[in-house]
Amino acid sequence: MSRSQLPVVGVMIGDPAGIGPEVCVRAAASPELKSQCRLVLIGDRAILERAADICGIALNLVSVTDPQDALEGDAVGVLDPGTFDPASNRFGVASAQAGEAVLEWLRLGERLGREGKLQGFVLGPMETASMKATGKVHDMDDLQPAGTFMLRMSGNLRAVPLSEHVPLSKAIELVTPERVEHVVRLVDRTLKSWGFKQPRIAVAGINPHAMFPEDQDKIGPAVAAACADGIDVQGPLVPDTVFRQTLEGRHDVVVTMFHDQGQIPIKTAAFEGACTVYVGLPFVMLNVPHGTAYDIAGQGVAQHQSMLSAIRTAASLAAGRPIAA
Amino acid sequence: MSRSQLPVVGVMIGDPAGIGPEVCVRAAASPELKSQCRLVLIGDRAILERAADICGIALNLVSVTDPQDALEGDAVGVLDPGTFDPASNRFGVASAQAGEAVLEWLRLGERLGREGKLQGFVLGPMETASMKATGKVHDMDDLQPAGTFMLRMSGNLRAVPLSEHVPLSKAIELVTPERVEHVVRLVDRTLKSWGFKQPRIAVAGINPHAMFPEDQDKIGPAVAAACADGIDVQGPLVPDTVFRQTLEGRHDVVVTMFHDQGQIPIKTAAFEGACTVYVGLPFVMLNVPHGTAYDIAGQGVAQHQSMLSAIRTAASLAAGRPIAA
Repeated sequence: MSRSQLPVVGVMIGDPAGIGPEVCVRAAASPELKSQCRLVLIGDRAILERAADICGIALNLVSVTDPQDALEGDAVGVLDPGTFDPASNRFGVASAQAGEAVLEWLRLGERLGREGKLQGFVLGPMETASMKATGKVHDMDDLQPAGTFMLRMSGNLRAVPLSEHVPLSKAIELVTPERVEHVVRLVDRTLKSWGFKQPRIAVAGINPHAMFPEDQDKIGPAVAAACADGIDVQGPLVPDTVFRQTLEGRHDVVVTMFHDQGQIPIKTAAFEGACTVYVGLPFVMLNVPHGTAYDIAGQGVAQHQSMLSAIRTAASLAAGRPIAA
Repeated sequence: MSRSQLPVVGVMIGDPAGIGPEVCVRAAASPELKSQCRLVLIGDRAILERAADICGIALNLVSVTDPQDALEGDAVGVLDPGTFDPASNRFGVASAQAGEAVLEWLRLGERLGREGKLQGFVLGPMETASMKATGKVHDMDDLQPAGTFMLRMSGNLRAVPLSEHVPLSKAIELVTPERVEHVVRLVDRTLKSWGFKQPRIAVAGINPHAMFPEDQDKIGPAVAAACADGIDVQGPLVPDTVFRQTLEGRHDVVVTMFHDQGQIPIKTAAFEGACTVYVGLPFVMLNVPHGTAYDIAGQGVAQHQSMLSAIRTAASLAAGRPIAA
């Protein structure tokens, strides 16, 4: 495959006061990425150059205005809208300036993804305090693109909840046949785009052992409708066994009825390379699964394996190659 | 330690049409138990003798009327109230006779436990259809002794939910400061009786990230009251990280707000030797974690490792030796 056929993966460098820029330059310097994607870092160029210095990495950064611009050899593209003043940056300190810059970089990456100029978009670590300091972000959940759902993966566990950070009593109310069917269809389309020929979808029940009429009433019609359209979906399945079955390879993904139903097994199993993908976009957008680590930012000691794994995952999924366990 | 100081562990042999009698005789023949407990099988003697024949095991069964009766050498006590007609037994077939016998054996074991004549009581696998056929058991949950809670353990994960098989919406309503405090105190006393000097108790929140006022309002006062009495308890903790922390050794037990919150990580992790202990009794009562396996009953092929592990666990906890991970 020639480089021009590889997916273009953008990486938003994260809060400039955190470890994001450092893990980005370390990952970008990794030779193995060359065969997997064309990489474009989205953020402030001077901040990236300083991060490379801090990490002792010689990186061939090339400013681009379009992520599709051909990058030859070991060049790594940088898309920098120039809205951040690198002189304002203080490692380990949250600021509205940092939050504003991150918001700008986020919007830029999302726009490029929707325009088909990025096939993958990885979000580096953001700092809640910086984001809130802008006055434009009330809650980090506001950053989730409208109409998307969050698919977490860890090893061969994959789970998509019907709702995120809402009280459990409210989450139960949000379980309706319509919503279940919508998410099942969305997950089916998404996994097919990632290279699963016929994704095997499990829908967890709401209640212990999926043993109450509510489980069948809310989930049964959605599963029946999706099955009638040829989707490989089962449910309601027993919540406390469906994740074990998934680990053992019986399902490709579990649609969960509330946030913790899937997050508990995923975070307990805690496989390497866990990440979160936004489902419902025309490109692969995912979060790196760690924070800004303000306490060690600017020291050149941050580990970049999670960032590297996130970029690899974005590249694989965008290329229609599902990740093996 | 002389044999007379070892805990007496009773084992209810389970549904006679299932594999219970076979796994009991195999476990009873295991030499390692001799140093850990004095074993008394509770059930029909003829059924046990046939199981020993089926398994090709020579077992020195000795009828006793009091489990404390001294058993010398390799003798295994049998407590048989004589209420089952072994000629009525058909492997793999549920029956009211089998259910009635199991009920009788259960009650006998529980009574002996409450009288201090058994320090441990292991329940062999029961068959729901047999139990219901008696007309005396509407639901297997009816068999749970009043006022007890179920502590599941698997590896070094231990979890006790505030409620069992109730709809999730109802389970949330059952979370009250009083109930949380009651279970925290009960778990503290129980783990101390098992040999934990100062059990480290985690209380999981109800909601994602334990981030809503309800989490603090319902759980905070209970934790504060228990702490004030010197109990080592923390909460509300984030539900999707507390089990990982427990696996890593930071907590000894998690009080969970509903059944699946703890069952999902425990059944997903699926360590060897998982079992369920009834908390709130003056003796250690626990379930063997498998069913009657009617399809292979009577063939001498059933594996007895789970039963052996359950007996060892009962003996250890009754002796005040907590199980290592």
